[in-house]
Amino acid sequence: MSDFTDKLRPSQPDGPTTLAHERGQSNLSVEELSRHLLSSDGFLERQARVLPIVQSEPLFSKEKQQNLSRPDRFKLGLARAKLLRRLKDKYQWSHDEYKMAEYLVDDVSPYFLHLEMFITTIREQASEEQRAYWMPLIESWKIIGAYAQTELGHGSNVRGLELEARWDSRTKEFVLHSPTLTSSKWWNGSLGRIANHAIVVAQLMLPKPDASGECVSHGPHPFIVQVRDMETNLPLEGVVIGDIGPKYGYITMDNAYMLFDHFRIPHSALLSRYSSLDPNTGIYTKPEKPALVYGSLTYVRAQIVHHARLVLARAVTVAVRYTAIRRQFQDRDGDKTGPEMAVLDYPTVQIRILPLLATTFALHYAGQAMCAIYQNTRKDVEKGDFRSLAHMHSMSSGLKSLCTMLAADGIETCRRAMGGHGFGGGSGLIQLNNDYLSKPTVEGDNWMISQQVAAYLIKKMTTAVESSSSAAVDDTDALYKEFIRSRQGGATPPSDLSVLENDSNIVKSFELRATALTYDTYEQRVLKKRSWNSLLIQLHKLSKAQSQSILVATFFEALSSDTSLSPPVKDIMWGLFRLFAFNTMENESFEFFRCNAVAKSDLDQLPNRVHDLMQRIRPHAVILVDSWMIPDFLLDSALGRYDGRVYEDLYNRAHRLNPLNRITFNPNYWEEEIIKGSGDDVSNVLSKL
Amino acid sequence: MSDFTDKLRPSQPDGPTTLAHERGQSNLSVEELSRHLLSSDGFLERQARVLPIVQSEPLFSKEKQQNLSRPDRFKLGLARAKLLRRLKDKYQWSHDEYKMAEYLVDDVSPYFLHLEMFITTIREQASEEQRAYWMPLIESWKIIGAYAQTELGHGSNVRGLELEARWDSRTKEFVLHSPTLTSSKWWNGSLGRIANHAIVVAQLMLPKPDASGECVSHGPHPFIVQVRDMETNLPLEGVVIGDIGPKYGYITMDNAYMLFDHFRIPHSALLSRYSSLDPNTGIYTKPEKPALVYGSLTYVRAQIVHHARLVLARAVTVAVRYTAIRRQFQDRDGDKTGPEMAVLDYPTVQIRILPLLATTFALHYAGQAMCAIYQNTRKDVEKGDFRSLAHMHSMSSGLKSLCTMLAADGIETCRRAMGGHGFGGGSGLIQLNNDYLSKPTVEGDNWMISQQVAAYLIKKMTTAVESSSSAAVDDTDALYKEFIRSRQGGATPPSDLSVLENDSNIVKSFELRATALTYDTYEQRVLKKRSWNSLLIQLHKLSKAQSQSILVATFFEALSSDTSLSPPVKDIMWGLFRLFAFNTMENESFEFFRCNAVAKSDLDQLPNRVHDLMQRIRPHAVILVDSWMIPDFLLDSALGRYDGRVYEDLYNRAHRLNPLNRITFNPNYWEEEIIKGSGDDVSNVLSKL
Repeated sequence: MSDFTDKLRPSQPDGPTTLAHERGQSNLSVEELSRHLLSSDGFLERQARVLPIVQSEPLFSKEKQQNLSRPDRFKLGLARAKLLRRLKDKYQWSHDEYKMAEYLVDDVSPYFLHLEMFITTIREQASEEQRAYWMPLIESWKIIGAYAQTELGHGSNVRGLELEARWDSRTKEFVLHSPTLTSSKWWNGSLGRIANHAIVVAQLMLPKPDASGECVSHGPHPFIVQVRDMETNLPLEGVVIGDIGPKYGYITMDNAYMLFDHFRIPHSALLSRYSSLDPNTGIYTKPEKPALVYGSLTYVRAQIVHHARLVLARAVTVAVRYTAIRRQFQDRDGDKTGPEMAVLDYPTVQIRILPLLATTFALHYAGQAMCAIYQNTRKDVEKGDFRSLAHMHSMSSGLKSLCTMLAADGIETCRRAMGGHGFGGGSGLIQLNNDYLSKPTVEGDNWMISQQVAAYLIKKMTTAVESSSSAAVDDTDALYKEFIRSRQGGATPPSDLSVLENDSNIVKSFELRATALTYDTYEQRVLKKRSWNSLLIQLHKLSKAQSQSILVATFFEALSSDTSLSPPVKDIMWGLFRLFAFNTMENESFEFFRCNAVAKSDLDQLPNRVHDLMQRIRPHAVILVDSWMIPDFLLDSALGRYDGRVYEDLYNRAHRLNPLNRITFNPNYWEEEIIKGSGDDVSNVLSKL
Repeated sequence: MSDFTDKLRPSQPDGPTTLAHERGQSNLSVEELSRHLLSSDGFLERQARVLPIVQSEPLFSKEKQQNLSRPDRFKLGLARAKLLRRLKDKYQWSHDEYKMAEYLVDDVSPYFLHLEMFITTIREQASEEQRAYWMPLIESWKIIGAYAQTELGHGSNVRGLELEARWDSRTKEFVLHSPTLTSSKWWNGSLGRIANHAIVVAQLMLPKPDASGECVSHGPHPFIVQVRDMETNLPLEGVVIGDIGPKYGYITMDNAYMLFDHFRIPHSALLSRYSSLDPNTGIYTKPEKPALVYGSLTYVRAQIVHHARLVLARAVTVAVRYTAIRRQFQDRDGDKTGPEMAVLDYPTVQIRILPLLATTFALHYAGQAMCAIYQNTRKDVEKGDFRSLAHMHSMSSGLKSLCTMLAADGIETCRRAMGGHGFGGGSGLIQLNNDYLSKPTVEGDNWMISQQVAAYLIKKMTTAVESSSSAAVDDTDALYKEFIRSRQGGATPPSDLSVLENDSNIVKSFELRATALTYDTYEQRVLKKRSWNSLLIQLHKLSKAQSQSILVATFFEALSSDTSLSPPVKDIMWGLFRLFAFNTMENESFEFFRCNAVAKSDLDQLPNRVHDLMQRIRPHAVILVDSWMIPDFLLDSALGRYDGRVYEDLYNRAHRLNPLNRITFNPNYWEEEIIKGSGDDVSNVLSKL
């Protein structure tokens, strides 16, 4: 399909020229920074090892996948997921290498739940005997499992689940039954078309001891249940299962609905490491340590927090590279000779992208800190020390809420900053955006779980007030007690804390604001006895303030304690720290002011400071995004590709790869024919509706 | 496909029961309010007339369209667009009725550009002779046209377009030529697969008078060009055209790329109402009134502003109805008997949805005001009076920027407020969101055009300062002069303007803030001579403040001057006005404070006021969204349907309508087979990549 456009080149300066210039003007070392960010757990080396393998498989080509129908896209997703597992066998990949391959292929796997919640639940909640039976089947993928907890009518409120598992003491079986439509399982990944087994969470209904024959619920319990025939893969008699249909994202995931009609499962289906039912006596033993379940949710949230930096880095990489290349208009005050300005040189583009660039690093250090705290707490818990669990749970909830919001909103901000081409399929952000938009909701809705943070902080403050004259038991307690002492004798005077020239004061200022909001909330709830629900908005603001304080503090601590970075890199990293902190502070100016957390004169200066910091960081922007080392294969972006050939790639996708251009249409409205000369009429289209 | 789930019902209280209760608890009349909002131009009656017709056409069924591939979705879009035109002929629809049908069918039409920019440009910029030739062909759809201005490398900066139209005085032809890849036309709707003609905007290159043979550009000019063969619908020799591929939205629109290789067009192709070229002498006549072109852009922006209310109303309708029905958790401080709480009763859900509900009305009145000003200005301009043009242009730019941002962000806020089911396909918001996300960028990027607002305001302030002792020439001038006088004698003292009990003070406060920001910007730019680009962020903030002020003022004026609304409706409308104003003000507290635009004590009270207003409005929320009269056919939403059968509809879409459930998959990773028992392997999937 050769034509005169084959020889055309973009106008000058083109993308490669521009990016070469951008990369030449910075004295930072990509290698140094990328090793600093991504080498500690071997991530970079793993990426280098796995990338060539997945890149060479035609099935992983992303070139045309945006054109597929949902059913075809699902078939592709399944074929890819199968191939990934075969490659794991072939190359003897570790679990981390396999996850790396999945990350690069960038499809949500229909086997995802099998590999995560299904296996984890068996590992953690099955008895030894159950594990011995199930684990070999699971690990060899002889059976495929899912995790069915959420229902059509209940997600957040797990206690409200409606599916019943009623004990039949005559046959020693449980009877799974869906009494209502809203009791249908819903959203359960990997189950809609694929899994033949599932962990099914249902109300454990046991006969009342009074022998009335009535049952009473002992709360939701997990059962392992075969739901499809191993030969035909069709649902078993008494079970209705299917995929819930198209969604914003997760196109390759078969999120399920599932209902049961008096479906009998054996006594051995109840996962019985922590709770059990004696089949002979009918005596029920309650779980001893509910805290452990709590730990597994925290793990998932910590993972989400840690993952957010790479998601946002991907969007920022695209936005920085493209806006460095894209030129539009000459300087209004300039002499109008020479090329147009790069749009990244406009402050109105910078203010949308550069604070997000800084945010990728803030998310990185917070994610690292979160993982470290998770590991330490787990060690404590294994030793029987549960004291740090509540702190970790609060931190993971608050950070999950804030960080997924920052990343999700950041993707869209980057997209809009790219103007027209940001709306096109060549951005590489469509699927990323569609998939990631699930994150503010799953694993605890961002607005709901902020209550968990606030509840913890109110409790800490209550203790601090009650024991204000005793020695502090931890950092938060010390902070709170200092705050309480400073308030004695009346209202706090306007702050003179200056943050502009003192980085540790920035951290103090964020802490002070969070502490003041905590105290205020404590006062409302504990002293004035205001109802919990009337305070919900305030609780959400408190959680956000606390989590922003953690982001700022962990960023500061990471830079302060680092001894390995070279001076030029360190210098820019401090600039990024300040940009993140000042931009965040500017957006919350009134709250910092009201909390007396920073000098008013400093607040007035923030817009100028942010502007100046952006000018300092701007020349290093391309190098900084390069350091995240996101390969073109993952970016799948004409706008963000490493070599800068933006326009060539956009044209190639349109002119050579777009299947719509192989069809010639009939534009005459008085003719029903759609495809020119085919006689093909509307009935063909109608049959798909 | 009957099974045991056919008889299942949702748990109680179900959706219909809940909505009946919601509708019963409000004393507002839906009929009164909907007539107030939508009757002035016959919108409601038109909707009632057209809806049954489109609803009865199987081709307009939306039930399965989310599952289609891009090519199939495009075919469907084309088939629907043809049918719509045939229905227009059949029912003798007016243009407004035809637009109503398009609005209800809710597909972007592949004929859209033919009906809008193509016909408008011919009407406005073609000579009489040209119009006489082309208009009958256009109106009968004998030819289909598009509008090709934007290029791969240039959108906002029209002067930077690269496509050349070089005058060949020997043959009396223009030669269209694309010198670079970036000169490819790009994004041009209706042209990728459908149109056979286009308005092509190209640099008019004329020989220099010095007879050197060199050409010089006289700027971009519009040409009417046949680009495809009328028989085959294939591009003519020397033209390359195609569809640019998948995008965020606009799936049924064939946005184009187009390049020319020394393609000759006749002299008559240059649209010559305003500028012309004598074919014999080669003498060029410049356009006299560039202001008229300016007017047409303003028209499009005014239309976008007016449309925003219905877009946001659609999202808010879904969110209000669903969150009124959705229940989760019992009151933490309550007695834990009775049903769970409706999530709309949580302040954290209210704060996301109810201010947006108020925003729909703010957008409504601002849109009305914008249209009225457009009509008046047009009358003035036709009389040769151009004085109000700059004001109208500034207002339309600022409102376009702010209102599309409010609507676009509002859709996503509503979606997230709906939790898990908000991520599903049953929300009815996916296509709305995907399509509407184009609006912040098209017809002037939201961040870019805010400069046009600021430039106008700085000019007004400069005039006011220079003539501060003369009488005011208009309202803005009066405001500015009062501000200037109040500043004389030094800095303004902290404000004591109280907004809590005085609605006209709310308007004043917004005006004061916008005026103070204008003065500050004037000072920076005019007195301190700061560069334009260094002020861009401030200019954007100024435009936003000015446009917020317009929204508040037009809302206030509409309610103040209304004499027809009943007391209960009026009362709630005032509540919505205050909710919109106070919520906006709270989000910008620091700026209002810094500008001395409101008493500090009032700012501290805003969160409580917003909370109280939400409690007052909450019982009327369902009735208020009902009043927007958005039919279920348009909503296409399980979550937002009028009768409240949320769960029944979600289940129906999943269990009965999802085509993926007709396919049984093979989950064994060691087998390449994808569809169970078909032997169908990966090659089938590969062929589509």
